[in-house]
Amino acid sequence: MTVKMSIPEMQEFLDRVFPQMKGAFTILEVAPFRVKVRMRITDDDLRPGGTVSGPAMFTAVDCAYYIATLAMIGPEALAVTTSCHIDFMRRPAPTDLIAEARILKLGKVLSVGDVLVYSDGMAEPVAHANLTYSMPQKPSGIGVK
Amino acid sequence: MTVKMSIPEMQEFLDRVFPQMKGAFTILEVAPFRVKVRMRITDDDLRPGGTVSGPAMFTAVDCAYYIATLAMIGPEALAVTTSCHIDFMRRPAPTDLIAEARILKLGKVLSVGDVLVYSDGMAEPVAHANLTYSMPQKPSGIGVK
Amino acid sequence: MTVKMSIPEMQEFLDRVFPQMKGAFTILEVAPFRVKVRMRITDDDLRPGGTVSGPAMFTAVDCAYYIATLAMIGPEALAVTTSCHIDFMRRPAPTDLIAEARILKLGKVLSVGDVLVYSDGMAEPVAHANLTYSMPQKPSGIGVK
Amino acid sequence: MTVKMSIPEMQEFLDRVFPQMKGAFTILEVAPFRVKVRMRITDDDLRPGGTVSGPAMFTAVDCAYYIATLAMIGPEALAVTTSCHIDFMRRPAPTDLIAEARILKLGKVLSVGDVLVYSDGMAEPVAHANLTYSMPQKPSGIGVK
Repeated sequence: MTVKMSIPEMQEFLDRVFPQMKGAFTILEVAPFRVKVRMRITDDDLRPGGTVSGPAMFTAVDCAYYIATLAMIGPEALAVTTSCHIDFMRRPAPTDLIAEARILKLGKVLSVGDVLVYSDGMAEPVAHANLTYSMPQKPSGIGVK
Repeated sequence: MTVKMSIPEMQEFLDRVFPQMKGAFTILEVAPFRVKVRMRITDDDLRPGGTVSGPAMFTAVDCAYYIATLAMIGPEALAVTTSCHIDFMRRPAPTDLIAEARILKLGKVLSVGDVLVYSDGMAEPVAHANLTYSMPQKPSGIGVK
Repeated sequence: MTVKMSIPEMQEFLDRVFPQMKGAFTILEVAPFRVKVRMRITDDDLRPGGTVSGPAMFTAVDCAYYIATLAMIGPEALAVTTSCHIDFMRRPAPTDLIAEARILKLGKVLSVGDVLVYSDGMAEPVAHANLTYSMPQKPSGIGVK
Repeated sequence: MTVKMSIPEMQEFLDRVFPQMKGAFTILEVAPFRVKVRMRITDDDLRPGGTVSGPAMFTAVDCAYYIATLAMIGPEALAVTTSCHIDFMRRPAPTDLIAEARILKLGKVLSVGDVLVYSDGMAEPVAHANLTYSMPQKPSGIGVK
């Protein structure tokens, strides 16, 4: 399988479908079953002591995996998160997050994979997540679109 | 073990330590190893189609489990989330969330338990999460408090 | 929804379909979306120091959740485990295991729930697991049964 | 950090400490924070239809991660599994399993990482697991070794 959308096409799709995220995600690299994205961290995402909030980390892994799935199935589809397991391993720095998503299985029913999250400029990951997405189900039978 | 803080003490502690959350969480019930809390959902937490965002769901489970742990170990302590596994089971309604947290093990090193999340007024849970917290480690040796 | 099989029917089905498990599981209680089972622990399941092996614990949670799903969907169906998250919380005693499974969502595509595992006679659980099963998909279209 | 044991040293340690596993695991490669092992599949591990049982898959991921941790901390230590999350992605073939374990964080309290499992000769993984081990705690204070 190959990538079905270019980086500009995906970037435009994200801005249109998720306007609340506008500008937060920059797609850095796309390859079959893999993407690397940057998530802009703002003051709203920081916590006392100079670290990044848990919900912001969740946003990073969920959106990175969404983008990886989008790249492979194209823009007409809608996949929803059915489970997310995150291991928080190191304290994030108060900087942008870099998330590397990898699809391990792209099935008819489920998409399964993982995401490594780094604080920009740090060598070791701050979090690792496993995600499962439920794939859009095509209507079956005759006479339905 | 018994609960170490009253609901007003916990509510005051949360407002002081997490001012960014001020008012979002109302503690409804506290019992040993169990709490029930309400999380106020605002327009920022909603998504197109009238549902609640994933990061808001993450906030609900993480804060509910934090509050359950706080009730049992008291205000001087600081526990951090080391892992969170969420199963998203049903589409949330655009209403407040009710989260019921249960501590299954409160050990010296780890606190392990789960959280059921409901849309206010719905009978069936929208999400279920397992959380692990790393417990604050006391300094060891002689002459330290 | 109601339970579709009696305990003797389920017990007979398990012995027939999983002969390698013959006699290991005794169904103690069945109610809608809940079962309680006993897993017989033999010398093969023990580890030095007098504890129960991890694979035996896995067997307990997986089979308990299978039985809970079987009770609700009936014997013609085949559901497969797509994910299993286990928190090992306490050292098991070298005795039978008691597993309490609970279905939180029985959907068309996925069955999601959890299992608490106890060493027989102990008050506190030794493990807690979240499981997801992929439900048997009916063929679609015309002319198929 | 570097690897603290050679492959023959680890192989001898495993045979001595886990005699019930004797011969099941062959360590193929060791590098800092990574190992690759083969698990021999026998008739006891197979299921009707010619596939490998869930408990055997659990054994593969748990032992592979144990070996990766052992390589980094050396033979005197004892680490125990505190959580294991497995995504079962494809039906295993009735052959040996190849497991690639990766340590993402080797902390004082927890070791966190993941394992990819392949059926020998297949290109795509059959399972992916995240594991957390609790690290052996050194006694603290004065006068203890």
